[in-house]
Amino acid sequence: MYYLRPKKIPVSVGNKYIALMNATSAHMLDLHPGDRILLKNAGQEITAILDISFNHDLKDHEIGLYEETWKKLKVVKGDRRVSAALADRPASVLYIRKKLDGIELNAKEIDAIIKDVVADRLSDIEMTYFVSANFCRGMSDAETVALTNAVVNNGGHLKFKNKIVIDKHCIGGVPGNRSTMLAVPILVSLGLLMPKTSSRAITSPAGTADTMEVFANVTNSAAKLKKIAEKVGGFISWGGGVDIASADDKLIKIRNPMSLDPQGMLLASILAKKHAVGATHVLIDIPYGPDVKVLSPKKAEPLKKKFEKIGAMLGMKVKVVFTDGSQPIGNGVGPVLEAIDILKVLKNAPDAPQDLVKKTIWMCGIMLEMVGKAKAGDGEKMAEQTIASGKAYKKFEEIIDAQGRNKHQLKVAPISFDVKAAKTGKITAINNKLISRYARLAGSPMNPGAGLFVYKKIGDKVKKGDVLFTLYSESKARMNNTLEYVNAKEVYTIK
Amino acid sequence: MYYLRPKKIPVSVGNKYIALMNATSAHMLDLHPGDRILLKNAGQEITAILDISFNHDLKDHEIGLYEETWKKLKVVKGDRRVSAALADRPASVLYIRKKLDGIELNAKEIDAIIKDVVADRLSDIEMTYFVSANFCRGMSDAETVALTNAVVNNGGHLKFKNKIVIDKHCIGGVPGNRSTMLAVPILVSLGLLMPKTSSRAITSPAGTADTMEVFANVTNSAAKLKKIAEKVGGFISWGGGVDIASADDKLIKIRNPMSLDPQGMLLASILAKKHAVGATHVLIDIPYGPDVKVLSPKKAEPLKKKFEKIGAMLGMKVKVVFTDGSQPIGNGVGPVLEAIDILKVLKNAPDAPQDLVKKTIWMCGIMLEMVGKAKAGDGEKMAEQTIASGKAYKKFEEIIDAQGRNKHQLKVAPISFDVKAAKTGKITAINNKLISRYARLAGSPMNPGAGLFVYKKIGDKVKKGDVLFTLYSESKARMNNTLEYVNAKEVYTIK
Repeated sequence: MYYLRPKKIPVSVGNKYIALMNATSAHMLDLHPGDRILLKNAGQEITAILDISFNHDLKDHEIGLYEETWKKLKVVKGDRRVSAALADRPASVLYIRKKLDGIELNAKEIDAIIKDVVADRLSDIEMTYFVSANFCRGMSDAETVALTNAVVNNGGHLKFKNKIVIDKHCIGGVPGNRSTMLAVPILVSLGLLMPKTSSRAITSPAGTADTMEVFANVTNSAAKLKKIAEKVGGFISWGGGVDIASADDKLIKIRNPMSLDPQGMLLASILAKKHAVGATHVLIDIPYGPDVKVLSPKKAEPLKKKFEKIGAMLGMKVKVVFTDGSQPIGNGVGPVLEAIDILKVLKNAPDAPQDLVKKTIWMCGIMLEMVGKAKAGDGEKMAEQTIASGKAYKKFEEIIDAQGRNKHQLKVAPISFDVKAAKTGKITAINNKLISRYARLAGSPMNPGAGLFVYKKIGDKVKKGDVLFTLYSESKARMNNTLEYVNAKEVYTIK
Repeated sequence: MYYLRPKKIPVSVGNKYIALMNATSAHMLDLHPGDRILLKNAGQEITAILDISFNHDLKDHEIGLYEETWKKLKVVKGDRRVSAALADRPASVLYIRKKLDGIELNAKEIDAIIKDVVADRLSDIEMTYFVSANFCRGMSDAETVALTNAVVNNGGHLKFKNKIVIDKHCIGGVPGNRSTMLAVPILVSLGLLMPKTSSRAITSPAGTADTMEVFANVTNSAAKLKKIAEKVGGFISWGGGVDIASADDKLIKIRNPMSLDPQGMLLASILAKKHAVGATHVLIDIPYGPDVKVLSPKKAEPLKKKFEKIGAMLGMKVKVVFTDGSQPIGNGVGPVLEAIDILKVLKNAPDAPQDLVKKTIWMCGIMLEMVGKAKAGDGEKMAEQTIASGKAYKKFEEIIDAQGRNKHQLKVAPISFDVKAAKTGKITAINNKLISRYARLAGSPMNPGAGLFVYKKIGDKVKKGDVLFTLYSESKARMNNTLEYVNAKEVYTIK
């Protein structure tokens, strides 16, 4: 064991514990980049991953500590030493190596890996090996179930006594598609329990949690969420607030640079979030189309079967539906603009977007029949009536009050710009990816009022100069930057 | 494009270009961790990889630049802005994805990946995906050849007019095994061209380059090495000094945390270094034994075949021999202690380590016969005579002078400790890994005089209290730390 003089590096690197040494200091301890070192100070003990600094910034016998490590070790300015020694590699590294070699892992081994992911004991390189091993070697059903359980058990979760707990999930990629946010008040108003945790946007203009935040607080503790659900029958809250599937969030960061979706990890990622809230019945919506994840129902048939099988192994009844994902659903894209759509639907307004209404009612019908609340063929009607009667809207208000209402949030961003048709004709395609990108560039979801409003859909006839969609932004600078990228011909195909 | 205020982060992170933003700034540009951003300032332009800082250290509109990036962009303290914009992912990322999907890559794609590795355009996560894809999917012979060529073409290399250029390589793992350093003066003294580039120690107590450095300068430019070889017939220099296989060094850093040796990468790693000096005839020494990389010749037979096949595809005649790697070779372990062994052998001293002499002569004999310098069966004798006659020693002195002599470097470290046999009996095994570890802990190779001297070998009979080996260290503190780990019973098996 050695004593090294701590030097603070005024940078924060997430929750990773990283320590820096110069080459001489590392050699003294016979350490190499990526090695784990056990650091001790003031009764604290952490395992940090070593990086070598190749510059003059660290002297011999100094150890550079980033903010997190400095804080966690309770180092105080002026401290002259912390102790350092080579630490063993965690067993999970050996399990990852095993998987790379093509050997199936058991539940204990997978749990050990996920524990270390959650505790930030694995480096990015090691986590990448885990993801790519799962991708290249494939995952057995037993491994997928074990991964789902490990993600649930090493994160926050809720338990209810109810016999039926429903949940739904959309694979995503379709802008404006807020049917989940509508399904909750509809189904809960019919007496079902629907504890909905949702994500914030990562690459989309708004996640369900971002749009719900326009109305209500979405960062609630597990205990509070349990109370809300028991009182009003459901909620729409942010999963990150209760650390649901936190391991999954970390692994997604590793998957993103290569857009890698190992099937077992995709399944575990989604099903863990359902399993964590104790769901018994789950509807999974897989939109298909030219620019969403799934090209056609036929291509996604094996995925559908896997969802249902792994769901059953976890004790959940999972039903998968394929829906049209060829264009945006609803008119608004961005938190506030989507929230306005939601209110129009729930208030039964004449200008409510009918594609959103139709999809929502259809899905709620399936779920009502799935849990036996409606007889076969009666589900849609039952769902429709909750809107017509104002019951669903009333329930939505109750849910908002239970979560904590946010006031005066329905403001659309002040700077607008109309994007017009360059020629006369019929719309044959809309590019979802570009719609999402423009909305994000305009400021969504960070500026909740930013985004865009879609006037025209596939099949509509337009004249040259008709407004296709309107962009909304908080500032002229932001709008000008967005307009540098906007190209009406690229996003709308008119023939 | 946006303008951000640069903030210097006083840390060096190797040659990577990394930029930090807080979440708000990243969102403004619709950027995510791992995204590439194009940064421009003062006529300079670089692509950096984005990291998000989760702390208070960066304000909105600020961009944190580590030392390398700050310097490269020629930012001056007080500068108010640099420009930033989303940059495309390099095509090499798509090729890595392709390989992950199990599709064979062509030479152009592999060259693009290696170019980006050398230019630090790939993140650790992306490089890890490349290594693991090669490991899990395997590499075809054509891919291995392409990788070797890419490593050579994107690094330093030498060209000679000679018809025969010889080289040798040892897979390593055997402490004290300096037969390569002896082979150069022996073979060169017989008129052969042997331009030997070697590595420094990574996990061993000394690389050939570290030991040679005791005698001579080992950091030479490609132009100077060419001159030396043309003048005296050969050299023993550090490959890193001429950037030979620099891509390989970066990929090895990624392979180390998981001890991953994808066969194609292992082959390319070794053969690229031979190909880069224009070798026509290569001898590869694969030691086998309980604690080196290869357990038995039988297990390594497929690797041998691959070496010979890939070598032929690259236009090199490669011969692979299996040698006993069950214990250290020679007496010294550590640069100076090994250098002393070398001189004893070349000067034909009575106490020269006979195992090292024998192995060297045998290998030189094979090489002499391989290139047609000696008739079959005459090679060993021819090699032996260069030592007996002093010819090899004279050539060694010439090589040292040509590279630039280091004076007064033959000092063994002053603090010594004798490790003694705990019981009487016969030595049946010596643990190479522990021998290496002790030598490193004692200070080797950073302190060239540190290391250990091995007195007893397998088969020797010892009495309780006999000295097995002596440790050498520069300071008492270092020796005391080493002794915390030393366990005579673990390293020597006496029965």
